[in-house]
Amino acid sequence: MAEQILTLSTKHLLGIKDLTTRDIELIFETADTFKDVLNRPIKKVPSLRDITIANIFFENSTRTRLSFELAQKRLSADTVNFAASSSSVSKGETLIDTVNNILSMKVDMVVMRHPYAGAGIFLSKHVNAQIVNAGDGAHEHPTQALLDAFSIREKYGEVRGKKIAIIGDVLHSRVALSNILCLQKLGAEVMVCGPSTLIPKYIGTLGVKIEHDLLKALNWCDVANMLRIQLERQDIKYFPSLREYSMMYGLNKQILNSLDKEITVMHPGPINRGVEITSDVADSKQSIILDQVENGVAIRMAVLYLLANQRNQ
Amino acid sequence: MAEQILTLSTKHLLGIKDLTTRDIELIFETADTFKDVLNRPIKKVPSLRDITIANIFFENSTRTRLSFELAQKRLSADTVNFAASSSSVSKGETLIDTVNNILSMKVDMVVMRHPYAGAGIFLSKHVNAQIVNAGDGAHEHPTQALLDAFSIREKYGEVRGKKIAIIGDVLHSRVALSNILCLQKLGAEVMVCGPSTLIPKYIGTLGVKIEHDLLKALNWCDVANMLRIQLERQDIKYFPSLREYSMMYGLNKQILNSLDKEITVMHPGPINRGVEITSDVADSKQSIILDQVENGVAIRMAVLYLLANQRNQ
Amino acid sequence: MAEQILTLSTKHLLGIKDLTTRDIELIFETADTFKDVLNRPIKKVPSLRDITIANIFFENSTRTRLSFELAQKRLSADTVNFAASSSSVSKGETLIDTVNNILSMKVDMVVMRHPYAGAGIFLSKHVNAQIVNAGDGAHEHPTQALLDAFSIREKYGEVRGKKIAIIGDVLHSRVALSNILCLQKLGAEVMVCGPSTLIPKYIGTLGVKIEHDLLKALNWCDVANMLRIQLERQDIKYFPSLREYSMMYGLNKQILNSLDKEITVMHPGPINRGVEITSDVADSKQSIILDQVENGVAIRMAVLYLLANQRNQ
Repeated sequence: MAEQILTLSTKHLLGIKDLTTRDIELIFETADTFKDVLNRPIKKVPSLRDITIANIFFENSTRTRLSFELAQKRLSADTVNFAASSSSVSKGETLIDTVNNILSMKVDMVVMRHPYAGAGIFLSKHVNAQIVNAGDGAHEHPTQALLDAFSIREKYGEVRGKKIAIIGDVLHSRVALSNILCLQKLGAEVMVCGPSTLIPKYIGTLGVKIEHDLLKALNWCDVANMLRIQLERQDIKYFPSLREYSMMYGLNKQILNSLDKEITVMHPGPINRGVEITSDVADSKQSIILDQVENGVAIRMAVLYLLANQRNQ
Repeated sequence: MAEQILTLSTKHLLGIKDLTTRDIELIFETADTFKDVLNRPIKKVPSLRDITIANIFFENSTRTRLSFELAQKRLSADTVNFAASSSSVSKGETLIDTVNNILSMKVDMVVMRHPYAGAGIFLSKHVNAQIVNAGDGAHEHPTQALLDAFSIREKYGEVRGKKIAIIGDVLHSRVALSNILCLQKLGAEVMVCGPSTLIPKYIGTLGVKIEHDLLKALNWCDVANMLRIQLERQDIKYFPSLREYSMMYGLNKQILNSLDKEITVMHPGPINRGVEITSDVADSKQSIILDQVENGVAIRMAVLYLLANQRNQ
Repeated sequence: MAEQILTLSTKHLLGIKDLTTRDIELIFETADTFKDVLNRPIKKVPSLRDITIANIFFENSTRTRLSFELAQKRLSADTVNFAASSSSVSKGETLIDTVNNILSMKVDMVVMRHPYAGAGIFLSKHVNAQIVNAGDGAHEHPTQALLDAFSIREKYGEVRGKKIAIIGDVLHSRVALSNILCLQKLGAEVMVCGPSTLIPKYIGTLGVKIEHDLLKALNWCDVANMLRIQLERQDIKYFPSLREYSMMYGLNKQILNSLDKEITVMHPGPINRGVEITSDVADSKQSIILDQVENGVAIRMAVLYLLANQRNQ
């Protein structure tokens, strides 16, 4: 990994949309190496020793922030965290001003979570830093899509030709679009499954199958990615109701065992046990949910490493 | 401290209950070494260089978190902090899922503060990590008990045979039970003193003296550990009232001087000056309150170091 | 910077009031060196490797805290952060007890932001640590004043003889007093400009010019330091109203271009674009707002470095 400077075709990681299939493969190959590092007793490499990264989170996300922060520490980067709730955002400062201020303190890269779609793209056009999108509303969440596809590759050897069903609340999901784009670029077949009230119109334009019957989707797929119901978002009025949803789209062990093949179960977390999947499914051998979390750190190390390499070119 | 691998008889530190007297002595001897380190110009040792520790606090505790965090940094461990208020806990995730997720990111040890008794024990049975209990409700707070006993040992040379009175709101205290167990294992005599409304029934089963008269308790003891009134907890209705409590169980300089011997005054902090002790007592030569805080870092270094040693066995 | 131990004439940095002109020049010369460091690929120096610094913020200030934290990391210091909202302050502990507790954990220096004037001075008399005042109410904010003067020196070669107008809400400003004292010690001429309702009485005793007409102030000065309106502080009732204020004291490009010389525009941030200055002014070549932020890290490195040097004397 040393002699040749490996890097991506893009300066930022704003969305899967901007990545070539070769970019994705390069991220996976780099993540393979870093996953080995994570399983050694000494889990650190000095790769990003002179890089300072700001994690700017305009929305809470303990899981994603921790994963990025650990990836940065494993790479020996310096990190500073900036949470919007305790920030000058409440003092009426613009997004560009906030970020430019942080950059003026000699920060090299920005990892940003923002509630609004396109915040990262907007920012990348107005500030002089490398931006990694850690989720912009219900738009893209590229590192989640990469770690999901990487976990499928790990399970099956390759993603090409696999059938993946993305099941549940596609409408409010932060991860559905990026997942569809990433899996398609890697040659998988993708289906979305859920009540029509929770499948956004744009899905029809993406060339994926749409299914409203859970059992049909499960019988079709190799991998079921069960999206989470946003229980904490009180602005969402679920129709069907949560009880109906859980009865119609919740995955339990009985359904899983009734299928004529052994499918793999994924979930982006945090899980609402008993809503989108039951505990016996989440903890079963068919579940790779905790592998996804572990792979998240390796994928984020790979992305940060490859983006940082551009600075040496 | 290098040749022989020193370690505890337990994989976790969930409570004083699980420690042998030899375990406690080993922690003290190790803390002696680390206290020397803390008083050198170079306060760091490389012992835990390849260990990642997550501090998971489901309840606020600046003091305990800072003490653990400094102990970890002195040992060169990597640390990540997780505060429940900004976490996926509010998104309906279970405790086991939250912790398993963090562990999947290759975290080695978990230091946890939780409002419910037994949270650490429960967790230790369901996840694959070493757990250090940093306080589980009014149940155990083992590192506080260890640092308290260590401070008595530092003052008197040994704990055996000393008379310690634990005075005040025993009922809501996070530290009383662990203190009683620790002091008894080390051969001290223990008394609890307070109004009967603030002494829980289980105390009668522990083989400690119970006293309701402050002056009698003070005249009996070598060390008075003055517990704090939980002024910030509005769910507690104090009976007697705070004014009565302070008059009956508050320690002031006049009372202290009226005793026929010089006792030592301890307090787990934070102090409500003028409630459980007056300022002239807190700041007197008989008070070892700030020594307790200093010893807290050394004790926590010792516990983390000894637990981490089990990984090499 | 190595052979001779450089240091300040004061043990703490509580206010500009306590600094000699030579102290300020020494800070600037040291900051010159550190600014070079910040622009190297390797932005770290080992100077404070064995120093632990606690950043204790009793008030939110993302910008100042990040700047101090980055300065500390560039100097290889260990840092711990303490935010009052999640602290034992809410448990009724006194300021002295809170800080003494943190110091007992072997912390060497305290950087403190506090809402009340004089909090740092009070603390410096009662605890045994070096205190850096990161803002005490509307009293002093010495590192901001130093970075502002340093930025003027950078722009013009020297501060002596320059004319600086401090414009806007002087009454509620955290930075006005320190700026006036610092600029005067360096031989600049200072004017404050704003509506009489927003200029405190004490200003008259400081030997600065007072002006109520924006255009006159701008025509007089070399540098206009545009203070911010505290939009987030609902306890402030602005008179004149915000709209009137913005019309009478807001700086736009048209006004800037109408002057017969090219003045420099500063702002302590965060900017309310369209209130105290318009976007075309903030982003113009005459603005050195982002230079101020960059210089902030270098100035704070210099202050921490010089204060730490006292420990070796």
